[in-house]
Amino acid sequence: MEKIVSLCKRRGFVYPGSEIYGGLANSWDYGPLGVELKNNIKNLWWKNFVQSRKDMVGIDSGIIMNPKVWGASGHLKEFTDPLVECKHCHVRFRADQLGYEIKKSNRGYSWGRGIPPGEKCPNCNKDADFTPPKMFNLMLYTALGPVDPINEIYNAYAKYLHSREEKDLKSIHDLFDRVNKELVYFRPETAQGIFINFKNIMDSARVKLPFGVAQIGKAFRNEITPGNFIFRTREFEQMEIEYFFDAKEGDWNEHFEYWQEEMLKWLDLVGIDRKKVSLTEIPDGERAHYSKRTVDFEYDFPFGKSELYGLAYRGDYDLKNHFKGLESYPHVVEPTFGVERTLLAVLLDSYHEDGDRVVLKLKPALAPYKVAVFPLLANKPELVKKAQEVYSLLATNYSLLPVAWDARGNIGKRYYAQDEAGTPYCVTVDFDSLKDEAVTVRDRDTAKQERVKITELKEWLLKKLR
Amino acid sequence: MEKIVSLCKRRGFVYPGSEIYGGLANSWDYGPLGVELKNNIKNLWWKNFVQSRKDMVGIDSGIIMNPKVWGASGHLKEFTDPLVECKHCHVRFRADQLGYEIKKSNRGYSWGRGIPPGEKCPNCNKDADFTPPKMFNLMLYTALGPVDPINEIYNAYAKYLHSREEKDLKSIHDLFDRVNKELVYFRPETAQGIFINFKNIMDSARVKLPFGVAQIGKAFRNEITPGNFIFRTREFEQMEIEYFFDAKEGDWNEHFEYWQEEMLKWLDLVGIDRKKVSLTEIPDGERAHYSKRTVDFEYDFPFGKSELYGLAYRGDYDLKNHFKGLESYPHVVEPTFGVERTLLAVLLDSYHEDGDRVVLKLKPALAPYKVAVFPLLANKPELVKKAQEVYSLLATNYSLLPVAWDARGNIGKRYYAQDEAGTPYCVTVDFDSLKDEAVTVRDRDTAKQERVKITELKEWLLKKLR
Repeated sequence: MEKIVSLCKRRGFVYPGSEIYGGLANSWDYGPLGVELKNNIKNLWWKNFVQSRKDMVGIDSGIIMNPKVWGASGHLKEFTDPLVECKHCHVRFRADQLGYEIKKSNRGYSWGRGIPPGEKCPNCNKDADFTPPKMFNLMLYTALGPVDPINEIYNAYAKYLHSREEKDLKSIHDLFDRVNKELVYFRPETAQGIFINFKNIMDSARVKLPFGVAQIGKAFRNEITPGNFIFRTREFEQMEIEYFFDAKEGDWNEHFEYWQEEMLKWLDLVGIDRKKVSLTEIPDGERAHYSKRTVDFEYDFPFGKSELYGLAYRGDYDLKNHFKGLESYPHVVEPTFGVERTLLAVLLDSYHEDGDRVVLKLKPALAPYKVAVFPLLANKPELVKKAQEVYSLLATNYSLLPVAWDARGNIGKRYYAQDEAGTPYCVTVDFDSLKDEAVTVRDRDTAKQERVKITELKEWLLKKLR
Repeated sequence: MEKIVSLCKRRGFVYPGSEIYGGLANSWDYGPLGVELKNNIKNLWWKNFVQSRKDMVGIDSGIIMNPKVWGASGHLKEFTDPLVECKHCHVRFRADQLGYEIKKSNRGYSWGRGIPPGEKCPNCNKDADFTPPKMFNLMLYTALGPVDPINEIYNAYAKYLHSREEKDLKSIHDLFDRVNKELVYFRPETAQGIFINFKNIMDSARVKLPFGVAQIGKAFRNEITPGNFIFRTREFEQMEIEYFFDAKEGDWNEHFEYWQEEMLKWLDLVGIDRKKVSLTEIPDGERAHYSKRTVDFEYDFPFGKSELYGLAYRGDYDLKNHFKGLESYPHVVEPTFGVERTLLAVLLDSYHEDGDRVVLKLKPALAPYKVAVFPLLANKPELVKKAQEVYSLLATNYSLLPVAWDARGNIGKRYYAQDEAGTPYCVTVDFDSLKDEAVTVRDRDTAKQERVKITELKEWLLKKLR
């Protein structure tokens, strides 16, 4: 894992976020190679699951939606950490910090025994008498519009400071309740943006059941324990599908099994080793109450087996919550893919050491650059000129073939850099090229070299990369 | 404009955000056609400005960064609305609501005369005595980690409610200051994520001056007056370039002029009419203080001439703020493109009415679908089967050629739908196709039809679409 983190920084895949300011809470920025790799993963997913299918359309909904969305979906109530309030002094504490036993599962939190007897409130020191644990929401909030809630509370406080009237003091209490109702949230998942647009899609896109709606986009969660490099971050990207079908026509489990197989095929497509992925059935009691079946795709990360993807049968839970009064509701199977987790697993499975050579054996479709072009010597204008011609020959058509150019250092260093970048082919223009109009093409995985005519180079590469 | 908004909803380009919950503050969701059009714009931009250039790399930095970024960039101080505080009761008001005369320019706010004489404070009713206007920040904030500031303020309030001690009341005041320091912000622009990673990029990507760094991504601004459809929204997407160069080598204005021309060429590429775009030099005094030259690209929208893109020479202002103590700093020219504004201008310039036919004459590179395939009659299995063969023939290679399928309604309605979707070609499989292995191809712009052999269809289309 350390080797991957180091490679990522060294080659410009992933930098620590806000590094020059001491970082920020396990955030990460994607550098020149990282952004291309990430885009290639997202584009391949979109082409595979949306553009190549007659039964799938895409959508791009807002990150900030009406807070009622999260009321209906259950996130305002369920997507939370436990909090208790002292009945004497009204100060609130996180339940686990008071000695409540918290059990964290993939699906949320539960708790065993309460606060130990004989304890006191850490604030007012009276005998412990707390409200039952209430959940602290994991959604990030903000305020829209000209009224800033923190400022409004400040104003109410300032008003009391001035008046010292009891009614002004009490009004602060009501204000807290009102402010909480006015907050908006950054979506913790992309799925709800699909559900709330279900009718719009039915009315505008020429679709009929069964069909799916896919979305790629950012989501935010105020995770208590982010970490393990890019595995768990507070800001992350999801690729989600909601596949709708008429539950009266056939068995939901057939759709479930079909999508499970499609997800496994996707692993092959991006080059994640199926043998490192285990499918874990989530047992009764640990699943969300509306789900009859959930399977976690767990990848064997260096820090342990952890969730890579998830597949859930959600029934008609979401549509029913959002659209009251329809006659019937399609059911839904939901395959969810993490973008950053895909990228991490791809890097782990691509990483190879061959003697002191580090090679990232990325699938060509994912490689940030498909080919690199070098002049053998950077200080020979005739070589540079010829190499530039070769570069221009390849880097046309708005880069069906993204090409790297490197004229720095010696040829060995350039090979080393391109191997670490995962570039499948390196093309070197040497003195012979000026005579024979051919170049040396080196294969990343075998390090073998081959002489190819410049006129045939593009076709040769496109064929190899297919 | 109403025609565009209506078309967008009808065909699934753009839906009102959170519509089933009464909407949310001028937010918009992109439907099946909208997400493809938006992706095509972003991909074309990336291919044109990043992947086709030797002197450009990309990056994808976090939306949430260390708040010190916004301290150094000036956003915490400058990116604001005016707020005044009553010196008697300490309640805060927006200056314009008290009668201050606010002048809003592209660069921010300024105000003329203050509060009219004889006025009272709307809260304590004492003679008006306000602090000078202080700016209310336009950045959306949130809190990371387990401590929720609103909850913390609530706790301090509850503590005082219980103790009634003066020190607990005073401590609330300090808490407001502390909380404001702990808040994090959603980036109001993508540019700063480029600047703070400048050294990381120099160290890891094999670049040398002059070179550019590009980023596409979401940004958020708590706009006081969002509106005009997707023109001004609180959540939006930017495509930005910071082009770095050595100011000692040559003239900054040459880079400026070069990028101005590149931006004009981009208009041609996406099909925005240059004649509708005027270049406005921002005069001294209205530019940001660090900018020696700024040009706004204003498009003639139905609601008036408004900013489409911007080009600014920022000198070394940003790098100097973020990286103290370097020996020298490259200077930078910054071309900024709005994604949604591009989409809106593209829709406006593509919209044509031809009798009662509505046609979206999108550039093929931007069209959500490049071609649609129909069986002439949907209830004839032999036609459907043949049409499906044609569909499969085209929809291969992970959709270099995104293909729509439509077997609903009559052929006229399907043409109508595809014209409104901007699909350049419609392919119909009819009874003759079963005999002559040819199909009818209809051109969106001319509505002319041509008979093409199925075996030659893909090449025919690829050639036309190029």
